[in-house]
Amino acid sequence: MAFYIQKYGGTSVGSTERIKNVARRVAKFHAQGHQLIIVVSAMSGETNRLIALANEVQSNPDPRELDVMVSTGEQVSVALLSMALMELNIKAKSYTGAQVRILTDSAHTKARILKIDEDKIRDDLKAGYVLVVAGFQGADAAGSITTLGRGGSDTTGVALAAALKADECQIYTDVDGIYTTDPRIVPEARRMKTITFEEILEMASLGSKVLQLRSVEFAGKYKVRLRVLSSFIEDGEGTLITYEEERGMEQAVISGIAFNRDEAKITVLGVPDHPGIAYQIVGPVADANIDVDMIIQNVSHDGLTDFSFTVHRGDFDNTMEILRDKIQPHIGARDVIGGDRIAKVSVVGVGMRSHAGIASKMFRVLAEEGINIQMITTSEIKISVVVDEKYMELAVRVLHKAFDLDQVF
Amino acid sequence: MAFYIQKYGGTSVGSTERIKNVARRVAKFHAQGHQLIIVVSAMSGETNRLIALANEVQSNPDPRELDVMVSTGEQVSVALLSMALMELNIKAKSYTGAQVRILTDSAHTKARILKIDEDKIRDDLKAGYVLVVAGFQGADAAGSITTLGRGGSDTTGVALAAALKADECQIYTDVDGIYTTDPRIVPEARRMKTITFEEILEMASLGSKVLQLRSVEFAGKYKVRLRVLSSFIEDGEGTLITYEEERGMEQAVISGIAFNRDEAKITVLGVPDHPGIAYQIVGPVADANIDVDMIIQNVSHDGLTDFSFTVHRGDFDNTMEILRDKIQPHIGARDVIGGDRIAKVSVVGVGMRSHAGIASKMFRVLAEEGINIQMITTSEIKISVVVDEKYMELAVRVLHKAFDLDQVF
Repeated sequence: MAFYIQKYGGTSVGSTERIKNVARRVAKFHAQGHQLIIVVSAMSGETNRLIALANEVQSNPDPRELDVMVSTGEQVSVALLSMALMELNIKAKSYTGAQVRILTDSAHTKARILKIDEDKIRDDLKAGYVLVVAGFQGADAAGSITTLGRGGSDTTGVALAAALKADECQIYTDVDGIYTTDPRIVPEARRMKTITFEEILEMASLGSKVLQLRSVEFAGKYKVRLRVLSSFIEDGEGTLITYEEERGMEQAVISGIAFNRDEAKITVLGVPDHPGIAYQIVGPVADANIDVDMIIQNVSHDGLTDFSFTVHRGDFDNTMEILRDKIQPHIGARDVIGGDRIAKVSVVGVGMRSHAGIASKMFRVLAEEGINIQMITTSEIKISVVVDEKYMELAVRVLHKAFDLDQVF
Repeated sequence: MAFYIQKYGGTSVGSTERIKNVARRVAKFHAQGHQLIIVVSAMSGETNRLIALANEVQSNPDPRELDVMVSTGEQVSVALLSMALMELNIKAKSYTGAQVRILTDSAHTKARILKIDEDKIRDDLKAGYVLVVAGFQGADAAGSITTLGRGGSDTTGVALAAALKADECQIYTDVDGIYTTDPRIVPEARRMKTITFEEILEMASLGSKVLQLRSVEFAGKYKVRLRVLSSFIEDGEGTLITYEEERGMEQAVISGIAFNRDEAKITVLGVPDHPGIAYQIVGPVADANIDVDMIIQNVSHDGLTDFSFTVHRGDFDNTMEILRDKIQPHIGARDVIGGDRIAKVSVVGVGMRSHAGIASKMFRVLAEEGINIQMITTSEIKISVVVDEKYMELAVRVLHKAFDLDQVF
């Protein structure tokens, strides 16, 4: 008998039929005697429908009112799942975020959880209820409804697990775990039985969108046992997100290959290399609300250096304009060049900390395939390269094989 | 400068375009310096959509969870109207029923309002906000979301007006007031400038569905000034619901003609006339959740009487079955007969209390047209007759003319 928080995403509750399937799955766990809190998202498509309505009415929807609207999506889901559970003769009860209550700050549309009241929930659990809690939402001190931002339902699950000291927080999704890389590109990709928090943070930020990054950080901070499973497969064990020290000796050096083709690269050539130059380039870009991902600056020659970074592909034209109109003349750079036909490929693994030679192996493997590396950045547990977009699949496949990720061990 | 509660129904907020129209109307009142609380219903169709979803999941949807779902309809409306007001540069803020809070009992799907917290609302009004409050909903002492039953948004408006002592509660709807009868049947039908609470209660229960009955009772109890207006016509004055003593001397004897063709009549013939017989007939019908409207029992002959009543037309077959299978043999009645091709026509008016001859005039007018009266019931301020359905329009027209309702006075 254990105490589980289970989170089901929008796809898992995307129709009343699917909600009934979730209810049957929950019923199985309930029959095994487990205590259960189920966190659900809005039915898939619902949040976008509501945002579209808001946009029809106000050119820049008021964040407080947007939260009032959007939070109804999960409110409908919790009621439907509670009903579906009752239809299976299980005592169930729904809670909105405000009812729990999940106290947040007042940063509407991207609120942070401050505190979770446990009393009502504990009483209901003791009384034998399966509780169904609306993900993604809370209420601030004044009682206004807040939302946690896209994907915030994962965060709700983890926060409940942390506050109530659940045995495990299980994130049910449309994949059956986290893979060494995308199986659509490398058929030999394997589901990982475990992955460390550090690795998944790197994988997530590189485009493997199985878990919301913030919920993983949250879980790491409060040492919540987090597991990703499929809501469409029976009895899968998914992937357990774990701590480095828990991992066995035989852990592979590299855990997975991540990739991302949503980016564009920009290089400012011939930049006078003096203090403050990085800020002068990146500052105006950030001021225009453009996110910058990789940033690379190499040593300078003759007082001049080249400064490169990547942005989301959709921001490419806008960024080029800002650089050419505002920044280049201002800082006296020689030229601004860029391209949006690129892809980023990364190898990730906590094991690389203690192993030399990962980078050189990666570069050799790519060279053997004639794939030119345009940019490189590294962190403690990952190495990312930018290559021509057309080589992305090939790069992922050969790296996956070279690092033995298709081997079961 | 006055303090108005304005309620807009589902049709008035049925699309984002209509919501913008409501916002423009509210803006006009705001510009005149009035304090405003706007109560809105769910967008038309939304409540039915949500109930249909619930029915897909649970054969008999749990009332608590149904309220959680259905209340999202108004929650979306209040956010959208607040946004639309802000788009017109008006400070606006939405409130759900639970946020106000509107405290109700725990009778889910048909809760009664117990108390309204004024503090937050008063503060916001003082701060210059137009408040947009979700109709139809509240929360019980445990914080569970409740709904007040269909049409409960009118009740929310009246309850707010009573609690906050507003100058007037204005119910905006798709008609521009209350008419002497249905203008589709009698083109000469006039909008009444005023109608008494007693009259509107009789009119409403007879099928004139402009206002929800309960809200009218509520308004009468707390002496709330209630006005019905059109949300599609500019500057109409609508119909003011008033108290008998406020009415002028020149008030007509009859205020309006109501009618209803949704009923069926049933007569149990040759019933042994002894105490308890009415209960023995009506009890099993009520137990089957069938509403009974008119009930008529005349004096008996030779210890036998005939017992008649009307039910909703959709309940006719079911009721006949109950009577023939369970009641007739049990009480030893001679026969059960009935018909569903009937209509009820009523004349209503507080003036009839002090005027003899209304009934005889009504019966004479119908007789002159060859319309046979099948059943008659009376109350202090109304006389209802059941006639063959095919004569309904004719009956309404001739009565409307006979009682001078087409005269402007």
